[in-house]
Amino acid sequence: MSLDLIPGGTIGILGGGQLGRMLALAAARLGIKVHIYTDSASPACEVAAAHTIAPYDDERALAEFVNSVDLITYEFENIPAPTATKLAESCLVRPGPNVLGVCQDRLAEKEFLAAAGVAAAPYMRVDDAGALARAIAQIGRPAILKTRRLGYDGKGQVVVREGADLAVTFRSLGGVPAILEAVVPFSKEISVVAARACDGAFAAYDICENIHKNHILKSTRVPAGVPMDIAVEAVRQTHIIADALDYCGVLAVEMFVTDAKSGAGQAFALCVNEIAPRVHNSGHWTLDGAITSQFEQHIRAVAGWPLGATERFVASKASFVEMENLIGEEVNSWSKVLADPSAKLHLYGKEMARPGRKMGHVTRLVKEPGLL
Amino acid sequence: MSLDLIPGGTIGILGGGQLGRMLALAAARLGIKVHIYTDSASPACEVAAAHTIAPYDDERALAEFVNSVDLITYEFENIPAPTATKLAESCLVRPGPNVLGVCQDRLAEKEFLAAAGVAAAPYMRVDDAGALARAIAQIGRPAILKTRRLGYDGKGQVVVREGADLAVTFRSLGGVPAILEAVVPFSKEISVVAARACDGAFAAYDICENIHKNHILKSTRVPAGVPMDIAVEAVRQTHIIADALDYCGVLAVEMFVTDAKSGAGQAFALCVNEIAPRVHNSGHWTLDGAITSQFEQHIRAVAGWPLGATERFVASKASFVEMENLIGEEVNSWSKVLADPSAKLHLYGKEMARPGRKMGHVTRLVKEPGLL
Repeated sequence: MSLDLIPGGTIGILGGGQLGRMLALAAARLGIKVHIYTDSASPACEVAAAHTIAPYDDERALAEFVNSVDLITYEFENIPAPTATKLAESCLVRPGPNVLGVCQDRLAEKEFLAAAGVAAAPYMRVDDAGALARAIAQIGRPAILKTRRLGYDGKGQVVVREGADLAVTFRSLGGVPAILEAVVPFSKEISVVAARACDGAFAAYDICENIHKNHILKSTRVPAGVPMDIAVEAVRQTHIIADALDYCGVLAVEMFVTDAKSGAGQAFALCVNEIAPRVHNSGHWTLDGAITSQFEQHIRAVAGWPLGATERFVASKASFVEMENLIGEEVNSWSKVLADPSAKLHLYGKEMARPGRKMGHVTRLVKEPGLL
Repeated sequence: MSLDLIPGGTIGILGGGQLGRMLALAAARLGIKVHIYTDSASPACEVAAAHTIAPYDDERALAEFVNSVDLITYEFENIPAPTATKLAESCLVRPGPNVLGVCQDRLAEKEFLAAAGVAAAPYMRVDDAGALARAIAQIGRPAILKTRRLGYDGKGQVVVREGADLAVTFRSLGGVPAILEAVVPFSKEISVVAARACDGAFAAYDICENIHKNHILKSTRVPAGVPMDIAVEAVRQTHIIADALDYCGVLAVEMFVTDAKSGAGQAFALCVNEIAPRVHNSGHWTLDGAITSQFEQHIRAVAGWPLGATERFVASKASFVEMENLIGEEVNSWSKVLADPSAKLHLYGKEMARPGRKMGHVTRLVKEPGLL
């Protein structure tokens, strides 16, 4: 294992939201400086040793940035791939820009998963309204039309129901290249948050069970209420994905647990929904509930350091960890959260509580008295 | 309880060392901005939203500082008391400047403890060599001569042994006002790290057992290996001290456990060595081993927020937490620490590993297999 960074060195982070902020805080604990590069004033800037606010295609700002750091990572997958590729010419970029090529494009992601032998929802490529009609004929309704690029938190997607006009539907997403996906009838949404080190070492956290509301993650409970064989299979698929991407860092794989029997006679089956090549909202519980947080783990991995332990604190059958997002006005409950001795409050330093904006989160280590 | 600060507000911190740095990181998690005021470039600056580097008596810099913050605290007790008093005229300063008056002067501290009814080592005031001779006649040798002001980590003190020339000894500390203290034969050194909220609420962590080397804290083990009645008494004395100071924030009280029988027939007795009106090195374990770290606890207290839970993680008879300082060159073991899955590494971002300089620390949650 090569230690590509030594304490006192600087990690450059592309993106300055709450994920960049929590990465910067984790880096600081390890004696590592952080330089945030972001296209607008953002929460991570105020906890970083340095920051640059400039467009992602500002060549001069990028050149100065790359000269000031020892290696580069990113906090979200929608930074322009050419930016990452250009930076990688003169600096270590981890995870590698190849990962962005897969994860920025839903079609490329589906093709990658199929090639890796990992199950995902049936899909078809949709480049125009005619292709949408052909896809609907094959996949049926309801189905979900998703733009290939720049979708998150439910943006860039629409459900195609019975009676919907297909030309109107296609135009409603801006007429851009898309895919049509079958609706998967699922019993649970889970995610696997895991890390792969540069030497191929792999470590997963306990499986997360997620509840979404208006397409935004509302809460996560760990461990997920799934049978052990499903948990093992979910980690195995995540491991396959990480290896196939030659991944370095923390990634999260969102999956549906379906109750449809598969050919192998299993009572449950898994269906990968999305790969997030970064630290992930469903892993925030690790800040308070695991020996190594996902943020420290990502810093360790991209620095070429050994991975930390992923064990959950108080990991008994009688306990679980619950993470709840504070979205929009919900952040106004902060003083109530502070008064609850079992709750850990995290706020991201954002000024405006716009609807749908993630303002902070709360973690609770819960013991079920009946099981003690 | 008045919430004197709301998320998004700014806490000013006097002092920029590792304690200020860890306070700033804790504040950031709670969505609070930090403005560090320090007289030289220091580790806390690079994780704070703002910093000022100026002498502690620079009136203009202080005026700008006070205008930029909502309240002020400090990370060490040797900031000039007039600075704190001046700032308190126009801003909340917590803990109050009265605390500095007591804790900056060993004589005032001894008199305060005596008035509070808390046992400390016998002492006498020493203003000149003649007074030293009179004090030695009463206290005997060996005894410890300590400057009244600006001592820490063994600086500003000397042991007066048999045969030592008293005039030379007095001059060796610079001829400044001092006290002579009896040597207390102790079996253990412990500390109580606790917090008092502005409304008088009080919460202590488990007792810390400390090992010093060359007068510098080397390691802390929690819980301390002392009988329950000693632990209860140590917390009681700390509570008395905090109340008597009308304290707001985290404080640490260092004590000796002696095996001399007291008049009350106890097998052990306690003797207060020093009050630290701030977060304390022996409380660093709380970052990894307690629900609320001492740094978050201090931020909560000075913000007028309710105190957090002080419970230790995995608090069973079979487990303890160990904190070891990385002093000077010991920091070069960082990569070994990273490879140990039971260890949590903390580095302070200091550039030069001078002998005696605290560069970082390591925490381990240890389970004794024999006791499981």
